[in-house]
Amino acid sequence: MKLYEIQKKIQPVSTGWKEKAKERLDDLTKPRGSLGMLEELAARFVAIKEQIPIVMPTKEIFVFVGDHDVVSEGVSAYPQEVTGLMVRNFLAGGAGINVLARCVGAKVSVIDIGMKEDLADAETLIKKNVRRGAGNIAQGSAMTQEEAERAINIGIEMAEKAYRNGAGMIGTGEMGIGNTTPSAAIFASLLPFNVAEVTGRGTGLDDKGLSRKTDVLKKVLEVNGGALSDPISTLAAVGGLEIAGICGLCLGGAAHRMAVVVDGFISSAGALVAMRLNPLVRDYLFFSHRSLEKGHRIFFENEGIRPILDLDLRLGEGTGAAVAMQIMEDAFKIFNEMATFSDVGIEPGA
Amino acid sequence: MKLYEIQKKIQPVSTGWKEKAKERLDDLTKPRGSLGMLEELAARFVAIKEQIPIVMPTKEIFVFVGDHDVVSEGVSAYPQEVTGLMVRNFLAGGAGINVLARCVGAKVSVIDIGMKEDLADAETLIKKNVRRGAGNIAQGSAMTQEEAERAINIGIEMAEKAYRNGAGMIGTGEMGIGNTTPSAAIFASLLPFNVAEVTGRGTGLDDKGLSRKTDVLKKVLEVNGGALSDPISTLAAVGGLEIAGICGLCLGGAAHRMAVVVDGFISSAGALVAMRLNPLVRDYLFFSHRSLEKGHRIFFENEGIRPILDLDLRLGEGTGAAVAMQIMEDAFKIFNEMATFSDVGIEPGA
Repeated sequence: MKLYEIQKKIQPVSTGWKEKAKERLDDLTKPRGSLGMLEELAARFVAIKEQIPIVMPTKEIFVFVGDHDVVSEGVSAYPQEVTGLMVRNFLAGGAGINVLARCVGAKVSVIDIGMKEDLADAETLIKKNVRRGAGNIAQGSAMTQEEAERAINIGIEMAEKAYRNGAGMIGTGEMGIGNTTPSAAIFASLLPFNVAEVTGRGTGLDDKGLSRKTDVLKKVLEVNGGALSDPISTLAAVGGLEIAGICGLCLGGAAHRMAVVVDGFISSAGALVAMRLNPLVRDYLFFSHRSLEKGHRIFFENEGIRPILDLDLRLGEGTGAAVAMQIMEDAFKIFNEMATFSDVGIEPGA
Repeated sequence: MKLYEIQKKIQPVSTGWKEKAKERLDDLTKPRGSLGMLEELAARFVAIKEQIPIVMPTKEIFVFVGDHDVVSEGVSAYPQEVTGLMVRNFLAGGAGINVLARCVGAKVSVIDIGMKEDLADAETLIKKNVRRGAGNIAQGSAMTQEEAERAINIGIEMAEKAYRNGAGMIGTGEMGIGNTTPSAAIFASLLPFNVAEVTGRGTGLDDKGLSRKTDVLKKVLEVNGGALSDPISTLAAVGGLEIAGICGLCLGGAAHRMAVVVDGFISSAGALVAMRLNPLVRDYLFFSHRSLEKGHRIFFENEGIRPILDLDLRLGEGTGAAVAMQIMEDAFKIFNEMATFSDVGIEPGA
């Protein structure tokens, strides 16, 4: 199913099932609401799945990989070759996301959606390259509208594949040297904030680097200013292929009624595009953590969203999503396994 | 080992090993510091254990149970009998702490340290009752100095037992209807804040209940005002047996170089007494979460401590400690299992 069909398929989550979930939560042996966000996570999942008890979900995290020619403007502390080296690290199981996904028992799938380098020999890499790196957005657009749609469709396809394989919960992840720059450009385009407000240090810029990045981002929006009329045009103008893939994963996940656990700053940029394409997506998204990246806090405030964790993570890859999946599983087990008041002979009380 | 000996046994954690840990963390395939608090947790644990790689710790959570005659002043939404019913729930494995401890593979031990009711038939309950409920602190002291010391010693004894059984990480937990009131009294005594600033809704008071509780707490401090000169006198005057047990667990954990994962508001009151008895304890404590209870935020701000989670939990029992232990294990696995830059051929960069 493709971008325009899938959007029509997305249904609201069930308020009736959310109520049923809350009734059960209020009958568990604890004061009402005293497990705070754990209760909310369980109720939201029931509203998606329409099933009690919760069937513990199979989990898959998708790491979309793309490059960004805007790195030639000096916006990143790392050279572009690191993208490919890190992909090999993912495939060998040695990266942060591999370790944390193992902790929660999630499968990790790595997709070349827009890498500069062709890792033809990498057998377990999912090869879906749309173009060899996004264009230098300080001098023009990242990609064509058609390329953006193809990249979104790859994300949708990944969600569908996960769904067919029985996944109930999917996570977003990404890798791409320089990709906090297009993400900040998306936030500055789709949110009522200017570039300076959403630009942060990425993986490690000093003050001088941050100042240069902010200047580059001003130029990005100037150069592409005419194109920022709708979400997909924004993605095509100032985005990245991996960000488009994440947008598609969010749409596809929502259409197939899976919980989509959104990683950090860059993943949130993809999720934001998906939410602007179809506001119903939001109820399927679980924002895993508030990253140290400055614009992330602003995004959450503007959208009225509270992320699960706040651990100063700024690695990406899906690492925050993996950790948050553990908290979600805790919530599901609380929902399923706790005794009820009638089991133990206590009056529910306040 | 008893209260006064144990305090002498507590040693500073190793700054040298913390440095070694940071060196390793900086050599892992991620930008420096980009796993935020996970890196800090791993480094702090290495500074305690002086061992690389980290040996994944065996875990035990201690739920200290005590009653509080101050409930007769109307400070709780639940009647006192609930303490005993919940203890039976813990022993049957149906409470929140049982579920969350299973999620992380931690053993749960339940200690009657100050229950009103004698659950003589409860075989797996650890029976160490010091007195049958703390006195009504709105009319006098909670216990004698000697009882406070005995209760602390029971906590120390539990830590020693865990240590002898090979635990590397222990968690605090508690149950006792009414015990946010003595906790608030301890915070108001040992921190530079007044009663109104540290008093919250406990497990579910409405506005009227909160106002009554604040008035009761003012009376508690008035009545016991003369006795609040040092940490143990404070505990004896306005504390609770379970809070004293937690204080002892923190002291004993530190003396035996274990990580002590502190649960929520009430556990923090016990931890605060331990930190005031011996400031070195602090480096062994891992505060699991910021509870919704008002005084908890103030406590963390005053002590300059950042808790691991912020999930609006207010159940107690050790539930926050159990969830935080998972985050700590994630951190340890990151430390042990991630590839290094030299493994994958990337220059460490920024």
